[in-house]
Amino acid sequence: MAKRAAILVIGNEILSGRVQDKNVNFIAKRLSECGIRLVEVRLVLDIEEDIISSINDLKSKYDYIFTTGGIGPTHDDITSQSISKAFNLPYEKNQEAYDLIKKLYEERGEDLNPSREKMAFMPKGVELIRNDVTKCPGFKIDNIFVMAGIPEIMQNMFYHIEKQLEKSNPIISESVRIYIGESLIAYHLEEIQKQYPHIDIGSYPSKIEENHITEIVFKGTNKESIGEAKEKLIKILQEKVIRYDI
Amino acid sequence: MAKRAAILVIGNEILSGRVQDKNVNFIAKRLSECGIRLVEVRLVLDIEEDIISSINDLKSKYDYIFTTGGIGPTHDDITSQSISKAFNLPYEKNQEAYDLIKKLYEERGEDLNPSREKMAFMPKGVELIRNDVTKCPGFKIDNIFVMAGIPEIMQNMFYHIEKQLEKSNPIISESVRIYIGESLIAYHLEEIQKQYPHIDIGSYPSKIEENHITEIVFKGTNKESIGEAKEKLIKILQEKVIRYDI
Repeated sequence: MAKRAAILVIGNEILSGRVQDKNVNFIAKRLSECGIRLVEVRLVLDIEEDIISSINDLKSKYDYIFTTGGIGPTHDDITSQSISKAFNLPYEKNQEAYDLIKKLYEERGEDLNPSREKMAFMPKGVELIRNDVTKCPGFKIDNIFVMAGIPEIMQNMFYHIEKQLEKSNPIISESVRIYIGESLIAYHLEEIQKQYPHIDIGSYPSKIEENHITEIVFKGTNKESIGEAKEKLIKILQEKVIRYDI
Repeated sequence: MAKRAAILVIGNEILSGRVQDKNVNFIAKRLSECGIRLVEVRLVLDIEEDIISSINDLKSKYDYIFTTGGIGPTHDDITSQSISKAFNLPYEKNQEAYDLIKKLYEERGEDLNPSREKMAFMPKGVELIRNDVTKCPGFKIDNIFVMAGIPEIMQNMFYHIEKQLEKSNPIISESVRIYIGESLIAYHLEEIQKQYPHIDIGSYPSKIEENHITEIVFKGTNKESIGEAKEKLIKILQEKVIRYDI
C-alpha cells in the first residue's frame, strides 16, 4: 500500500502573493517518483496557532508531512517553536545543530549572534536533516520533516530525506494529446475509466492559439492496465478520425 | 475589519506535480489589492469526501472561500456535485447555465452532448459567475465562489466577482533590499517589529551569484507607520554602512 503524504507551506510571502511557491511542485514530483501519494497541501501564514492546528490535524491523517518555511534567523521564522508547542516538547538548543552552525560562522570568520544561534533551537530530541547549501539543518520529528522555504535549500534537504522514505511502485504516467475540446471525448473517457477503476484517467484542456487541445493522462502503478486503457482510447480516436499525438 | 479568505484548489494534476498551480498566486495578489486577508490555502485531490470535508471546514472559518478546478465536462470534474453534497442540496440542471451553454454550442453549430450538459449541473439555487472566455459559468453558493481551474478562465471569473467582495484599506507594501544575509540584521528587525506591532515585517533572503541579498518587506494598511518603520531600518543601515536599495 502506497504511503500517503501532505505538505504544509508556512509563510506570509506566499499567501500575500509576493512569492510564487515552487516547493509544492518539486515535492509533488519527487513523491510521485517514489510511489508516495500526495493527498493534501496546506498553506498557512506565520501565525503560531495556525501552524499548530495544521500540524495537529495533518500528523494523525498522513504517513508523512513535509513542511517548508519559517526556520530562518528572523523574528517571523516561528516554525520550530510552533512545532515544539504542537508536540508539547521543550523548545531548546540542539547541540548538534549548534555545533554545525558555530563551525559555519567560525569558518567564515563571523560572529555567532543570537539570531544565528536561534537556528539551532528546535523541539527536544529531534533528528537533524542535513543541508549542504547553507549548513543550517532542518529536522525530523515523528512523521514530520521540517525544511527550509528557500527552494535551493529545501531541495537539498529533500534529497537527504528521500532515502529514508518508504517507497512503493512508482506511479507511471502516460498521456495522449488530442486536438479537440474535452467535451467531445468525455463520454468515452468515462467508459474507459469504468473499465479500469484502478488507474486514474485525467483530462486537461488547453488552447494553442485558438485551437483546442486536450491532454489525456493515464496514471497508476500497473503498466499493463495503463497500456490497455490508452490503446482503447487510441482505437476510438482512430475510428472517429480525431487527430492525436502520443 | 478586513475580511478573511481561503482558497481551495481542487485537482489531481496539481498534487501529482504535473501542473504548477498559478491560480493561488493570482488570487493572493488580487485579494491583497482589495484589502482582504488570505489566511489559508488547501490543495486536494479529485476525491469527493476530501472536497466535502475541506468545504465544510473552511466555510465556517472564513468570510470568503474561492475554489478552482473540477467544473469541466469530464468524469474527473466532481466539484459541483461534491459541493451540492456538502450543502445537502440537490445537484440539478441550472436553467440559466443550461441556456448559456446551449446557446454557445448552437452558435458553434455543434451538438449539446451529455458531457457538455453536465457543466450546467450545480447545487440548487446558486448564483452564476460569468465567464467571458468559454461562456460556461462558475457559481456562488453562500460564501463560496466556485471557479474553473484553467488560469485564463479563472482570472476572468475573478474579475466578475471582485466587484461584489467587501474591500477594506488595501494592504500597502514597501521594501528595502539589503546586501547582507538576514542573520546580520535580524535583531534590529525584531526591535522595529516590536515598536510597530500592527505592521508585518518580513525578511526574505536569497542569493545573486554568491552574494547574499535580503528583501525586507513592510506590510500593513497604515502608510505612515510603514514609512516610519522603513526609515528606522534605513537609519540603522546607514549607521552600520550596509549597502541597500529602496
